[in-house]
Amino acid sequence: MLLHLSTWSEIEQFLERSRTIVVPIGSNEQHGPTGLLGTDWLCPEIIAHQAEKSADILVAPTFNIGMAQHHLAFPGTISLRPSTFIAALGDWIRSLAGHGFERILFLNGHGGNIASIEAAFAEVYAEASFAKRRAGYALKLNNWWDLPGVVELAREQFPTGHGSHATPAEIAVTEWAFPSARKSADYAPPIAPSGPIREALEFRARFPDGRVGSNPRQATPEKGEALVMLAAQSLIKELDAFTHEPVPA
Amino acid sequence: MLLHLSTWSEIEQFLERSRTIVVPIGSNEQHGPTGLLGTDWLCPEIIAHQAEKSADILVAPTFNIGMAQHHLAFPGTISLRPSTFIAALGDWIRSLAGHGFERILFLNGHGGNIASIEAAFAEVYAEASFAKRRAGYALKLNNWWDLPGVVELAREQFPTGHGSHATPAEIAVTEWAFPSARKSADYAPPIAPSGPIREALEFRARFPDGRVGSNPRQATPEKGEALVMLAAQSLIKELDAFTHEPVPA
Amino acid sequence: MLLHLSTWSEIEQFLERSRTIVVPIGSNEQHGPTGLLGTDWLCPEIIAHQAEKSADILVAPTFNIGMAQHHLAFPGTISLRPSTFIAALGDWIRSLAGHGFERILFLNGHGGNIASIEAAFAEVYAEASFAKRRAGYALKLNNWWDLPGVVELAREQFPTGHGSHATPAEIAVTEWAFPSARKSADYAPPIAPSGPIREALEFRARFPDGRVGSNPRQATPEKGEALVMLAAQSLIKELDAFTHEPVPA
Amino acid sequence: MLLHLSTWSEIEQFLERSRTIVVPIGSNEQHGPTGLLGTDWLCPEIIAHQAEKSADILVAPTFNIGMAQHHLAFPGTISLRPSTFIAALGDWIRSLAGHGFERILFLNGHGGNIASIEAAFAEVYAEASFAKRRAGYALKLNNWWDLPGVVELAREQFPTGHGSHATPAEIAVTEWAFPSARKSADYAPPIAPSGPIREALEFRARFPDGRVGSNPRQATPEKGEALVMLAAQSLIKELDAFTHEPVPA
Amino acid sequence: MLLHLSTWSEIEQFLERSRTIVVPIGSNEQHGPTGLLGTDWLCPEIIAHQAEKSADILVAPTFNIGMAQHHLAFPGTISLRPSTFIAALGDWIRSLAGHGFERILFLNGHGGNIASIEAAFAEVYAEASFAKRRAGYALKLNNWWDLPGVVELAREQFPTGHGSHATPAEIAVTEWAFPSARKSADYAPPIAPSGPIREALEFRARFPDGRVGSNPRQATPEKGEALVMLAAQSLIKELDAFTHEPVPA
Amino acid sequence: MLLHLSTWSEIEQFLERSRTIVVPIGSNEQHGPTGLLGTDWLCPEIIAHQAEKSADILVAPTFNIGMAQHHLAFPGTISLRPSTFIAALGDWIRSLAGHGFERILFLNGHGGNIASIEAAFAEVYAEASFAKRRAGYALKLNNWWDLPGVVELAREQFPTGHGSHATPAEIAVTEWAFPSARKSADYAPPIAPSGPIREALEFRARFPDGRVGSNPRQATPEKGEALVMLAAQSLIKELDAFTHEPVPA
Ligand code: NI
Ligand code: NI
Ligand code: NI
Ligand code: NI
Ligand code: NI
Ligand code: NI
Repeated sequence: MLLHLSTWSEIEQFLERSRTIVVPIGSNEQHGPTGLLGTDWLCPEIIAHQAEKSADILVAPTFNIGMAQHHLAFPGTISLRPSTFIAALGDWIRSLAGHGFERILFLNGHGGNIASIEAAFAEVYAEASFAKRRAGYALKLNNWWDLPGVVELAREQFPTGHGSHATPAEIAVTEWAFPSARKSADYAPPIAPSGPIREALEFRARFPDGRVGSNPRQATPEKGEALVMLAAQSLIKELDAFTHEPVPA
Repeated sequence: MLLHLSTWSEIEQFLERSRTIVVPIGSNEQHGPTGLLGTDWLCPEIIAHQAEKSADILVAPTFNIGMAQHHLAFPGTISLRPSTFIAALGDWIRSLAGHGFERILFLNGHGGNIASIEAAFAEVYAEASFAKRRAGYALKLNNWWDLPGVVELAREQFPTGHGSHATPAEIAVTEWAFPSARKSADYAPPIAPSGPIREALEFRARFPDGRVGSNPRQATPEKGEALVMLAAQSLIKELDAFTHEPVPA
Repeated sequence: MLLHLSTWSEIEQFLERSRTIVVPIGSNEQHGPTGLLGTDWLCPEIIAHQAEKSADILVAPTFNIGMAQHHLAFPGTISLRPSTFIAALGDWIRSLAGHGFERILFLNGHGGNIASIEAAFAEVYAEASFAKRRAGYALKLNNWWDLPGVVELAREQFPTGHGSHATPAEIAVTEWAFPSARKSADYAPPIAPSGPIREALEFRARFPDGRVGSNPRQATPEKGEALVMLAAQSLIKELDAFTHEPVPA
Repeated sequence: MLLHLSTWSEIEQFLERSRTIVVPIGSNEQHGPTGLLGTDWLCPEIIAHQAEKSADILVAPTFNIGMAQHHLAFPGTISLRPSTFIAALGDWIRSLAGHGFERILFLNGHGGNIASIEAAFAEVYAEASFAKRRAGYALKLNNWWDLPGVVELAREQFPTGHGSHATPAEIAVTEWAFPSARKSADYAPPIAPSGPIREALEFRARFPDGRVGSNPRQATPEKGEALVMLAAQSLIKELDAFTHEPVPA
Repeated sequence: MLLHLSTWSEIEQFLERSRTIVVPIGSNEQHGPTGLLGTDWLCPEIIAHQAEKSADILVAPTFNIGMAQHHLAFPGTISLRPSTFIAALGDWIRSLAGHGFERILFLNGHGGNIASIEAAFAEVYAEASFAKRRAGYALKLNNWWDLPGVVELAREQFPTGHGSHATPAEIAVTEWAFPSARKSADYAPPIAPSGPIREALEFRARFPDGRVGSNPRQATPEKGEALVMLAAQSLIKELDAFTHEPVPA
Repeated sequence: MLLHLSTWSEIEQFLERSRTIVVPIGSNEQHGPTGLLGTDWLCPEIIAHQAEKSADILVAPTFNIGMAQHHLAFPGTISLRPSTFIAALGDWIRSLAGHGFERILFLNGHGGNIASIEAAFAEVYAEASFAKRRAGYALKLNNWWDLPGVVELAREQFPTGHGSHATPAEIAVTEWAFPSARKSADYAPPIAPSGPIREALEFRARFPDGRVGSNPRQATPEKGEALVMLAAQSLIKELDAFTHEPVPA
């Protein structure tokens, strides 16, 4: 089920059979000369919506703007500061937990979100910890590329030039989902440089076209389809395992 | 152009011919027995994406979670507190203004957002005002139902029972866009009660099925289509007028 | 009763016969060549204090600094940012609700406050909504010029040139209450321009003497007196209706 | 001049002859069986307004709600949290400094405000300090009872039972200014107990009628008048000294 | 006991015999030509650790960075803004109170911290006050130089040139504790000037070598030892008195 | 050099020869039946202070309270919420960067801090990124156990039962530095369980004595010494490499 295409009473009924929900979360930021600005929120959305077609899982709307301060020197990037991110994700979690969701899995599409997501988890858990009560819910972060089997497939598809930003894997996923939005460019150099990530202007000086360590030319819709299908099945299994993970009394 | 399906260099080029962007903004909240939880963010997204098909406008990703604290007693509602909303919208605006956007129009789908949107505008404007400098950008709020002509059409389509929440107009829009997600229910009473809106539990006590003053049964995909087509054309004109509105030196 | 001229035990006794309180709220900001900087907080204070003379109502101290960032380019304006406003009004409400006030009516004197007041209401309501408990109090916003009958009287007194800022109506009210502080000036043009309101420097460029759409020359103490007397009586009725408004169980 | 009864152009003119302003600041909180809830903001307002009658000084509106969390167990008390207080006072200071005021003197009426006022000063100064620039303005805190000569007069008037809260001195001031609001009560014991001040319920347990160390029965309007007249003259001298205090280059 | 050299079960046992803890708190900031940057956090740490050798008291880790915005123009100073300070101290207090500590004494080494410490106390107390519940713990601030007898000894040791910052007393304490870090310099003038303290650049213009009113040349390790021994004994007595101070029911 | 045992002019001189500083950062939290509460801030402090003995590096005071909300059910733990942590670390960074430090390396002793440290880095970088200016400084996080060679040595010393909290490696380090604070206990089971980490009460239910996956009995002061000596040398090399890392123009 897609939450946004459901009614409140359908969610009420879902809660009688399951207390688990998955939230796609990403970022809207430059992805090199050919990557879509939406890549990082589209990928987890595509995978979660694909998973939903073959399993009775509930998918929340997508948290589409993430922590991307380092990409702000490239037009089209939209970023929350970490403190805003933590406040916003906290309100999402408080809303969902208030309805009785006890397992909330965030399917993440942006490495730069990880610290802020984990900080947000700790921020809401801390409310329970300081109040000396149980939280009543469990939070989990899964990067889509870390779902079981996905990294192996990506490594097989892209033995070199996968890199860490504007990767051929993520671009392949969006090429499959949005074939008419496929772009091309001459990449120079073919494989982009790597290095530390700091603030926006330094980032652009270091990574002039936005890519980090990647060669996106290797992306094809077919490879994207394979990644999505595998990731969707892995997600279903992860959700099932998370749902049945025992919690100490 | 849809920003999330564009590359950063396409946005860079767009900025050479226009400094205007439209941001769909809404809420994810209960909409009565048959309304979709996503109604309020889907409507402006649907209209803006429709407008984008026939004009050279740029549409940002959708700000999909809004200020819906009063709906939290109904499962599936996700809400930001106003303070979180202001922080988040502020970061969106700072990001876009940083790229050179000088006219940012928010196409809103949720009455409950209006105060928080205007407060967010004042919060970012205040940075310039306290610093004694020009902001360099103009912000504008348009509710989709207030776009020129739309309220007249809705009144004609729904002379009674339009109401103010879970209205037949907004439900018609989503029925047209997501025909397979159309729901039905027996509404009792046909037209929902009206009254003041306060916190969540009082809201649910006062409006037991979530509707406020509306009779959503009147919605049809055809009426939705007419609303979308009209609103999309009005939006294009609004964006054009906003773009050319003179700013004092 | 004026709260600030009462003792705590007098308030304790008042709470035994009524759970309603009115809080004048406004702004301290430029009001054109002749309007007092205090106009927007003085008007609701004058009206509430007048009402208190003929009815057993309780009037809180005046929330005198509001959201006036757009007026900061004119000397004497003092403004809170919306986020500060929300925090401050929240603490007022939490304080009053803690004493057992169940109906808190804010009599507002500044259009620019409306969004921040409503956002503040939502912010404190949200504490109850997220905690899944009833708030236990109801909040209400009344602009003094919207009290029943007042807009009709003002329209009759000032058929043209009422405008929206530094209006002859609000200036008349202060002229009646502070006759020795009456000022005069040559207004050029007689009726000020209108237009959108953004940050402070743009505001001053657009509205050079501070007025928006108004011709304050029409103000007289006599017209002010009539407005105050009518508004005071309307306020008493509003408070009574608010007090007896049924709340769902 | 009273700022709130002036126009923006009058303030613009004042700024040509002086860059100094005084802001009365206090609290709205219980003051024992007979003290007015407004005592702590009325006293500095009364003194500053009295001073303004005989000198060309500028008096801002009164910051009337302060840090009074410890009094919240008594009806009628309204308190800001320190964090809110700091944010609000900061916005007042930023507004006034933005107009060119270079010396801002806060005439304080509430001991419980002192820490929050000084913290607020440091918070706004820190903006300059972190940015490695001069602030451009100086802030000063004067408690009205510490104005030169006042403590000596109060000690002479009330050799015993002055205490530290609901003092006969502050009650005398309001009795002089608001003779019709004078109250009486049987105080038991005549002189209230003293002790540490912590949170509200402990405060009320420790100080059952709200007084701390004081015997307010000694207050008379005549003593109040003498205090006000002396304090007003001292304030004028303090403002003059503050205005002419040299600032290092 | 030093908390940081204990295990959690040792603290659990300590809580069975005492509910009192002392927290050294200071600042890391310039202390003139010869004073250590750590002076203000080292002094209370030295005294508390000395006290711990002869009494069964519990000493928390040192809160070592305080409110020192006015010293930021001197290299090595590290400062929290007051708002950060309040948030941080609040979390320390909430953590300790959550374990059952009912008396938390802060032994302070920096005058510039006082306002922020008291504001932090009020901020956490306010949580209880607004919630209409008892806090369950008492907080106390002791500046080490105000411990009984210490000021008299310092006055005897340094009859002139004690001053208020980079005092010979505090420098003597660190000279005793860190003899190998003793520094020397030519002070010009021997006794530093005094004056108001505002933001960092004004501070450095007014106090060019960082001292305020002091002549640190008078410091010796022997005088420091005497101060520490006296202060440590006084601290033990203060803790005992605080522990046994009755709290109203 | 230890910053806290230096004067401001010594730091001024240091800045002429180096723009690099190392900040030990950790947490004060339970470390099982025998681990010191201070373990996580003591370890990086011990290593950094050891390194300082043989190289011209500058060591800041220790950030000793970290993000340890999950340990709050064990007495003695003190934790900041992530939002407080970010604010505090931000002020440290702003202070140090203001003095001209261009490379700030945080030597971390607590895995639970990593997300909050990285979020804090992004929060301060974002100030530059939103303002479209260079930050002017680079931040780096090194966990002491990840310093080159250290994990290999620890694995050799503790082939099984190293675990992830209250590890024999970190306990060995404190045993070497504080031999008189060495504790012993019967561990049951010898190797503690592992599992996900959430809020405090769940943590204590899952890990009853506080350890996670570790067998601390293997710790000895000798192993600790070897770890410290190796880590200190690695730190010196890391600082050197960081200092000379090229930054793009
Ligand atoms: Ni990506
Ligand atoms: Ni709607
Ligand atoms: Ni007005
Ligand atoms: Ni008082
Ligand atoms: Ni000192
Ligand atoms: Ni550890």
